[in-house]
Amino acid sequence: MMCFSDLPMPAHFPNFMHNSQLLQYLQLYAAHFNLLQHIHFQTTVLSVKQSPDFACSGQWEVLTEDRDGLKKIHIFDAVLVCTGHYTKPVMPLKDFPGFETFKGEYCHSSEYKDPEPYKGKKVVVVGIGNSGADIAVELSRVAKKTFVSTRQGAWVIRRTSHKGCPFDITAFTRLLDLQGLLLPRHLINWVSERELNQKYDHRLYGLMPKHRLFDQIPVINDDLPACILLGVVVMKPHIQEFQGSTVAFVNGTKEEQIDAVVFCTGYNCSFPFLTASVFTGPGHNLNLYKHIFPPSLEHPTLAIIGLIEPWGPIMPMAEMQARWATQVITGVIHLPSKEAIETEMKGNMKRCPSPKHGNLLVKYIPYMDELANELGVRPNILRLLLTDPRLGFRVLFGPCTPCQYRLRGPGKWAGARNAILTVWDRVSKPMMTRVVPESRPSRLPKLLVLSILLVAAIYAGKRHSKLLESPMAALNNWRMYVPAAVLRVLKI
Amino acid sequence: MMCFSDLPMPAHFPNFMHNSQLLQYLQLYAAHFNLLQHIHFQTTVLSVKQSPDFACSGQWEVLTEDRDGLKKIHIFDAVLVCTGHYTKPVMPLKDFPGFETFKGEYCHSSEYKDPEPYKGKKVVVVGIGNSGADIAVELSRVAKKTFVSTRQGAWVIRRTSHKGCPFDITAFTRLLDLQGLLLPRHLINWVSERELNQKYDHRLYGLMPKHRLFDQIPVINDDLPACILLGVVVMKPHIQEFQGSTVAFVNGTKEEQIDAVVFCTGYNCSFPFLTASVFTGPGHNLNLYKHIFPPSLEHPTLAIIGLIEPWGPIMPMAEMQARWATQVITGVIHLPSKEAIETEMKGNMKRCPSPKHGNLLVKYIPYMDELANELGVRPNILRLLLTDPRLGFRVLFGPCTPCQYRLRGPGKWAGARNAILTVWDRVSKPMMTRVVPESRPSRLPKLLVLSILLVAAIYAGKRHSKLLESPMAALNNWRMYVPAAVLRVLKI
Repeated sequence: MMCFSDLPMPAHFPNFMHNSQLLQYLQLYAAHFNLLQHIHFQTTVLSVKQSPDFACSGQWEVLTEDRDGLKKIHIFDAVLVCTGHYTKPVMPLKDFPGFETFKGEYCHSSEYKDPEPYKGKKVVVVGIGNSGADIAVELSRVAKKTFVSTRQGAWVIRRTSHKGCPFDITAFTRLLDLQGLLLPRHLINWVSERELNQKYDHRLYGLMPKHRLFDQIPVINDDLPACILLGVVVMKPHIQEFQGSTVAFVNGTKEEQIDAVVFCTGYNCSFPFLTASVFTGPGHNLNLYKHIFPPSLEHPTLAIIGLIEPWGPIMPMAEMQARWATQVITGVIHLPSKEAIETEMKGNMKRCPSPKHGNLLVKYIPYMDELANELGVRPNILRLLLTDPRLGFRVLFGPCTPCQYRLRGPGKWAGARNAILTVWDRVSKPMMTRVVPESRPSRLPKLLVLSILLVAAIYAGKRHSKLLESPMAALNNWRMYVPAAVLRVLKI
Repeated sequence: MMCFSDLPMPAHFPNFMHNSQLLQYLQLYAAHFNLLQHIHFQTTVLSVKQSPDFACSGQWEVLTEDRDGLKKIHIFDAVLVCTGHYTKPVMPLKDFPGFETFKGEYCHSSEYKDPEPYKGKKVVVVGIGNSGADIAVELSRVAKKTFVSTRQGAWVIRRTSHKGCPFDITAFTRLLDLQGLLLPRHLINWVSERELNQKYDHRLYGLMPKHRLFDQIPVINDDLPACILLGVVVMKPHIQEFQGSTVAFVNGTKEEQIDAVVFCTGYNCSFPFLTASVFTGPGHNLNLYKHIFPPSLEHPTLAIIGLIEPWGPIMPMAEMQARWATQVITGVIHLPSKEAIETEMKGNMKRCPSPKHGNLLVKYIPYMDELANELGVRPNILRLLLTDPRLGFRVLFGPCTPCQYRLRGPGKWAGARNAILTVWDRVSKPMMTRVVPESRPSRLPKLLVLSILLVAAIYAGKRHSKLLESPMAALNNWRMYVPAAVLRVLKI
């Protein structure tokens, strides 16, 4: 699900990869498309400025510095900024009264690499995003005690769904997406939250958030609930204050002799190399058209790629942004008028469930389809169902793999069809290391048939035996009423 | 669920305890009942022999050695052997052709203490009992690659069930036990296996065993399936042979450069201090009456406690064995005649689902009830439902905690009732570290009512508007048909 659309992951890769395997994939991709020749590594971009004739040319002046300290100015026709929004660690120490009295160690999650230094220590993890949860679980295996302090709480989902399949395989299908469009948001939240609470009651586990499930990106963690149940991770509300090595929480509890605090308090995005004039909103509030183009510029020659909080895999979404943006930059696709852009963006803001996170929150299929539509690469399902029903069926009901956007239009890839049809092979391949032959078919249906027939026979026999008032006759009757089928079942 | 019947676990203990906490509980128990004065620590029992006048007295000669090497012979009226069946590690090296060519490290699970020595290594874990699964998961976090080789496979269950409650709380209830008695074994296996496979398909995960779910003790592990999905634990079939550092498996695959092998191949029980004459069967096949008394002895003054593979918590089951055995030894309860014992034991053997494991496999509630019945401490549910319905209800539908066997009869404990009624408090207490106040009640029911009413109103209004052929009248009609309830719902 997270591959780029024109190169599925190698089949032997596990369903959830180690970071080294993801790196391997990126290297594979670069080699496959012979990209390395186009990339200048170890070169810092110091500034990206509109060129003096920007109004006319739409060009950018880019100042770079290579590893030898050599600075150079380049003129580019367009710039794609792909630095993401995990750039500036946020550590709001001022929001914690008395923090200056705390003598233990502390760091931001971005500095955390290894649980080893925390062996035998009492640690407070502040924040329960994906980093907070991952770090808490890792720490809990070596630390004396791990506390997770969260103001908001979080919905924690597993990596697997039905039958232990990767959850994204079952969650990101066009059918479920359609359901999401047709049913009220409230109902979907309610049903999904209920289902999630059946696995572990978020209230009992101290995880219960204030927001609804689909209003923010959930925490994906298989281990955190078990750690809470085992008492090695202890959930705590927000910190009220630090009193030396004691941490007081807003529910009145105190934990003493805390050795370390890990702040998993997120990031702000920052583009120090860009002139401020590019952006219209402050901080997170970057108003970008389709999350890509700053609408204030005269020419759409600066695109921001990957500045989204995706409800889905970021890699293919960023790829789709790049495909669309390059078509806009090269003039194949024209952006609407400034007024139309403004109206569309205002409308999007209104529909935001949570204003703070909402303007970066992007759903996988609707967003992919929106861009793919303009690109002319959105699969035509009706047509597929008619001309290639097997494929159409998979596209509609199966996982919406990125390869679906390579079936037609510019950038069409001949291997897309096969890649879509063989998704399940790639899911099962890495796990097929101990194949157990299908045992004899379950005897249950047979047993059921047998039981029903026997009961019917006994009942019928009994009735007749009463009528005839003779046990021998009853036995004969019983025999009479046991259909030949029973014997056949018995023999099989 | 695993406490002794007259002292529930401290409420603040987590639902699944660290071994240090279990030790703490045992110390608490000993202190609470002032037991330490009766126990001689650091004293080895060298031999337990029938005294010369055993036929008459039933006494035993016990030779001990204290920590100073001082040997001493004691005469005891009775002996309870509580050494369990994890005494003699089994490492069947001869069953692995070519093992002598393997130059890596190897050990038995009983010697494994810490994953640290396996950092960065390729390890094969042989066997998938509870130790095998636990060790594989631990290793996978530091090892380069962990393989689990299993001939049989295993059913792997989670520690939690519905809503994330400890599974034993929901699995060991009298209602479910009754269901187990009434429904055919095959059906229960089929339903439970299906349910389990919904969580993770044992076939896809390479875990699929040959035996049925309830025929052997399952593996309890929350992490193993995720490790398999992530590819850090790789399931393998049985080992065919060792070829130096290469391990060949029966499915034809080979894994090279294996650094270490951990044999999680179980234990044999062994009682070197007992004369062989006590036991009638070889090896595991200890034929014990009710899993406690060797039937060959003239006097029931030797009891083996805890020599079971329990489908349930071992501690209260061993306690119940001890309660019953002491009553037999002191002559309050009389064992049946030798012939009756033989008949009963033969009957039990016949019902065994798997002869090898079956004769140690014991189900929690039926076994507890069987012994409790003879002791006169089995709760009388009908009577409870009539005299103390709240308690009766909990005893019947709630978790069958060991405290249920302290409500009446010898050893009755006044605190049992309260302990049964407060089970859920002790489950939730350790997790209530971040209590989130119940939010406003879900608006869904209201929304549903509202929607239904609105649809009905609109439909009715439309019908009338057609009849009257006047939009204004329709509007009025529509208003007429919106019941006051809608407004009430809206206001709430």
